Amino acid sequence: MLAPMSYELFYWPSIQGRGEFVRLALEDAGADYTDVARGPGGVAQMTALLKSEGLVPFAPPFLRCEALVISHVANILNWLGPRLGLVPTDEAIRAHALQLQLSVTDLVAEVHDTHHPVASSLYYEDQKPEARRRAENFVEHRLPKFLGYFERVAGAAGFALGDAHSYVDLSLFQVIEGLRYAFPTATRAFEPKMPRLLSIHDRVAQRPRLAAYLSSSRRLPFNEHGIFRRYPELDVSPTWG
Amino acid sequence: MLAPMSYELFYWPSIQGRGEFVRLALEDAGADYTDVARGPGGVAQMTALLKSEGLVPFAPPFLRCEALVISHVANILNWLGPRLGLVPTDEAIRAHALQLQLSVTDLVAEVHDTHHPVASSLYYEDQKPEARRRAENFVEHRLPKFLGYFERVAGAAGFALGDAHSYVDLSLFQVIEGLRYAFPTATRAFEPKMPRLLSIHDRVAQRPRLAAYLSSSRRLPFNEHGIFRRYPELDVSPTWG
Repeated sequence: MLAPMSYELFYWPSIQGRGEFVRLALEDAGADYTDVARGPGGVAQMTALLKSEGLVPFAPPFLRCEALVISHVANILNWLGPRLGLVPTDEAIRAHALQLQLSVTDLVAEVHDTHHPVASSLYYEDQKPEARRRAENFVEHRLPKFLGYFERVAGAAGFALGDAHSYVDLSLFQVIEGLRYAFPTATRAFEPKMPRLLSIHDRVAQRPRLAAYLSSSRRLPFNEHGIFRRYPELDVSPTWG
Repeated sequence: MLAPMSYELFYWPSIQGRGEFVRLALEDAGADYTDVARGPGGVAQMTALLKSEGLVPFAPPFLRCEALVISHVANILNWLGPRLGLVPTDEAIRAHALQLQLSVTDLVAEVHDTHHPVASSLYYEDQKPEARRRAENFVEHRLPKFLGYFERVAGAAGFALGDAHSYVDLSLFQVIEGLRYAFPTATRAFEPKMPRLLSIHDRVAQRPRLAAYLSSSRRLPFNEHGIFRRYPELDVSPTWG
């Protein structure tokens, strides 16, 4: 673990969204960080940074640490991991952590597209028939495929990676929280098939700093502006359930 | 650059797809590699590996190097980069390379979803109305946003990253090739606005090992089974063109 640093997280202030995966890592490690866009003038600061010169991010979330600004959840976590003690420094294990995190990224994108299958720029109300079709397919095929995969490759010791807690565990916790919120019927139906994931989830929820965060006002509630949304018409019952 | 190694790439044998981004890096570096699934019994070997125990990949492409098996294009390139001399070893620059590559990943996923907006498991023919809507939005908003972003952050020296050739340049070459194939109308209309990207594209195409690869039988043609597909009904004319 390198010397303690101070971090600035930039993300939309009213949703958990993709930023939450970074927040969980910062909170779990007790890092010194500012959630910039939740402070006065923060959204304007975030927008200005995205429009500035140089190798700026494509979109939030992004992290600033001294002169370095980096974006994409998996990239941020890959960079923060060794600094926060949230991944072993061994390069092969770091590559496996990043690999798992990128499968989380893929799952999150597919969850987003259950309510926005046509375009992010349109309202959900303007793509409801397509969303229903996509959600049916997601619940029937993709949700069990992703959760089944994470369950299968999780270690027997109660960690995603071998025998040590990592940022991947935090992200899997968030995935389960999000899926329970957005697709309660299918998620609950699958839970008997994912004992290792539930063990990871419950262990993470009890980590002291994370438990304190989850019960604080810093933890935003899920809502229908984020990635994981609860639309009853999309909470499809799977045929396998 | 570390000692030369021998690599095995596992990817579907009849498409460029996501595997092509890894192939380009291996070919450009003159690496010693085997495209396993294109050899006898290779697909069966790939499938068996995905079903084996341990931290196996979620899906192809994946790379094997001695005992290490890692998946996801951006992760593979992040790992290969220093070994193939395709990214500086400086950690901040590597994070910026990975960040750009992850935006390529996002673009590629959105291109895929123009022909599969409802489900990968369904045929294109079973989601044509949704595909048309998604393609219209992609061409109108997302294609110019992504290309405009890459153009804006590219260095003035003709490289994606500062003043050195990297795996990101290879991926941007492939993105332009793919978009020209799948969305020729919009891509050609945008090209006057992306001189830096065209400079990167043309420079990459002329690198001796890459030029040799592109004119060899190892370079598969684009087709309607891959990520970039040419469906005339999806080659929408943008209003901005």
